[in-house]
Amino acid sequence: GPRKAPPIEQKLPCTLEELYKGCSKKMKISREISDASGKTLPVEEILTIDIKRGWKKGTKITFPEKGNEQPNVIPSDLVFIIDEKPHRVFTRDGNDLVVTQKISLAEALTGCTVHLTTLDGRTLTVPINAVIHPDYEEVVAGEGMPFPKDPSKKGNLRIKFNIKFPTRLTPDQKSGIKKLLSA
Amino acid sequence: GPRKAPPIEQKLPCTLEELYKGCSKKMKISREISDASGKTLPVEEILTIDIKRGWKKGTKITFPEKGNEQPNVIPSDLVFIIDEKPHRVFTRDGNDLVVTQKISLAEALTGCTVHLTTLDGRTLTVPINAVIHPDYEEVVAGEGMPFPKDPSKKGNLRIKFNIKFPTRLTPDQKSGIKKLLSA
Repeated sequence: GPRKAPPIEQKLPCTLEELYKGCSKKMKISREISDASGKTLPVEEILTIDIKRGWKKGTKITFPEKGNEQPNVIPSDLVFIIDEKPHRVFTRDGNDLVVTQKISLAEALTGCTVHLTTLDGRTLTVPINAVIHPDYEEVVAGEGMPFPKDPSKKGNLRIKFNIKFPTRLTPDQKSGIKKLLSA
Repeated sequence: GPRKAPPIEQKLPCTLEELYKGCSKKMKISREISDASGKTLPVEEILTIDIKRGWKKGTKITFPEKGNEQPNVIPSDLVFIIDEKPHRVFTRDGNDLVVTQKISLAEALTGCTVHLTTLDGRTLTVPINAVIHPDYEEVVAGEGMPFPKDPSKKGNLRIKFNIKFPTRLTPDQKSGIKKLLSA
């Protein structure tokens, strides 16, 4: 039988928002098809790729035999591979989202409220009353990425903290802190 | 010509103190030697291994042909491979020594003095007046491991800090800290 040309792979960069909400992407491809007489002619085609909620980097979408047509060869498959564009705020860890919040030492010790905009545009307000130490992680259940196999369920949002220490303290500040913390 | 038996490798665990100061280790080995008539007899031998200052894990010391003697075979070489025993205080990073010091948040902010016993038994006193943030590293030049190729030179000692935050603070402590740190 006729041999099949090897698949053509192409990366498909998606934002975290697109992978969170799902979306439809239209891709214009150019290929050559051959008519009954064997003459080839160029055509353009629009492929619609349905990106499902929660899809991960590396997910492959195959369009069978969408490569160029040549005599005696089965056209190659066209394969799109989901890639994840870096996000300004969130990084993805499996089905979890991770964000690092910069706070002052005073906020770490006396409490702070984290305000975040979710990937679907909601405002999230997370008040934290505990003392925030350098390895502290605040977990917001269900505010991660949708599970690819059941997008009604979601992973967690993990808030980490980068605590900015003061670069220097006056002798008065030092003695005040010493008194307060060793009480 | 006669074939040579493959080398016999054996780990030689050394403490960080031994690798810092250098030392001499005596190893008793049991082997068989053969006399002129071909008869073999067991012997015990003491090998002296001179461990040089600054030697690293993986350093090999070869005693040629110290394996068993058999007719028509050149005895194998005996190879000792330096291994590093874990140390209670220091870890080694190339020619540097690294130590992690547990301090309170009050010490991190108001200053502290680190007391250490070096690998050759001296007392090292390192006063730190800077504010110590979680990634702060105090470098003490020349208090690391000796360079194997020139033991008169030494790497650095790097002091890292694990800052213990208070688990909770009273409202009074919080308002005091807020006042002190936002001044």
